Amino acid sequence: MPDKPNLEVCLSPALLHLFDTKDTVTVIIDVFRATSTIAAALDNGARRIVPVASVEECIAIGKVTPNSITAGERDGKVAPGLEYGNSPSEYPRTFIEGKDLILTTTNGTRLLHMVKDAHTIVTGSFPNLSAIVEFLRKEQRRVLLACASWKDRFNLEDALFAGAVAAQLKDEFTINCDSAMACISLNADSRGDYFEYLKRGAHYKRLSGFGLESDMVYCTTADVHPVVPMLKGGDLVVHR
Amino acid sequence: MPDKPNLEVCLSPALLHLFDTKDTVTVIIDVFRATSTIAAALDNGARRIVPVASVEECIAIGKVTPNSITAGERDGKVAPGLEYGNSPSEYPRTFIEGKDLILTTTNGTRLLHMVKDAHTIVTGSFPNLSAIVEFLRKEQRRVLLACASWKDRFNLEDALFAGAVAAQLKDEFTINCDSAMACISLNADSRGDYFEYLKRGAHYKRLSGFGLESDMVYCTTADVHPVVPMLKGGDLVVHR
Repeated sequence: MPDKPNLEVCLSPALLHLFDTKDTVTVIIDVFRATSTIAAALDNGARRIVPVASVEECIAIGKVTPNSITAGERDGKVAPGLEYGNSPSEYPRTFIEGKDLILTTTNGTRLLHMVKDAHTIVTGSFPNLSAIVEFLRKEQRRVLLACASWKDRFNLEDALFAGAVAAQLKDEFTINCDSAMACISLNADSRGDYFEYLKRGAHYKRLSGFGLESDMVYCTTADVHPVVPMLKGGDLVVHR
Repeated sequence: MPDKPNLEVCLSPALLHLFDTKDTVTVIIDVFRATSTIAAALDNGARRIVPVASVEECIAIGKVTPNSITAGERDGKVAPGLEYGNSPSEYPRTFIEGKDLILTTTNGTRLLHMVKDAHTIVTGSFPNLSAIVEFLRKEQRRVLLACASWKDRFNLEDALFAGAVAAQLKDEFTINCDSAMACISLNADSRGDYFEYLKRGAHYKRLSGFGLESDMVYCTTADVHPVVPMLKGGDLVVHR
């Protein structure tokens, strides 16, 4: 029987240099809210998502892309000059179907561009939890779960999602990674009530101050958008 | 009533720049094994511990210091040129009482020198868990629990100790730090059986490969060395 592939978790982009991303399936995780929004928009029929690093780039690409919308946030709010924000509820099928979404966020899209040599890059959050788990199970390739965090600071929601994935895959992968073990403990301590668990987190306090509690419920609801968003030629599209 | 002081946890020296250490009580944590050995040696009567960065410096200071011994490890083994290792069991009272211990380790002593502007620097591990908790409780000052980790990689044992401290202080301090919340979850998941919990960690596998299982039992046994090792003028001495 062949060895089981390794599964590791990187808790912050500031620790990414410690991991060998080459030939991995890397899962980018930014629960509040980029990778939740990405799952929602693609599941609701967006043709593709173009993740970009800067607001300026977002505006410039939007101008030359027919049937596109520009969206993104800085510090949890719609960035000046962009049309829409980073809330999954902004992208129902009636609005986003068939459109290109040009997206920039504080943490998540930045990390997408930091991983250069992975075999495959996908994005994950609770709305597509089981889809990601099933995809990794089928691929049987080395996995890195990469938390976008908040300006390089560890955050609870990305680590909890990593734990929810790792807990389901721990018998099929080799986990010799303390970060992954810690995330599995968070998942155990949450008892599956992700939203309630995350009320103790710093991000809950910040986003609920902006009136975004319903967004956080959306972002922590499992399996409402069962897609695997995959990076192909610089765009995120649904893997089929 | 005055605001409660903040308590934060830094999970790796590679994340230390994200924290404001100024005027904090910083607790350096290197459970396997530097800060366990420090607690043991000081409680057993060592006059002082001189933490140094390099093996060369350790040898040089040992040569000019009467009644001293040089000790330290690199990658879990006694470093060539030094007399003793980094095992708490090497420092019983019959051996270490009245002596100066010149010590260099892979991770722990390095971190001691990275924190420059703290009000007070102390070292903690399970053998002096309650002593540290009581000290922080009395100080009522902003706290940073700083994990030495393993070559900048997050490790489970330092985070678990941080969680054991934070869980006891969470009503007396303000904790708006996701790392601290995660560590508290690890502590909850351990159910107080630290050694058993840490068997899932990478460090357990490495050190048990060196035959150091009894060392890990020592390092995870609470309150056998109830001292507060404090950095004063470059030396670690017992705070009285």
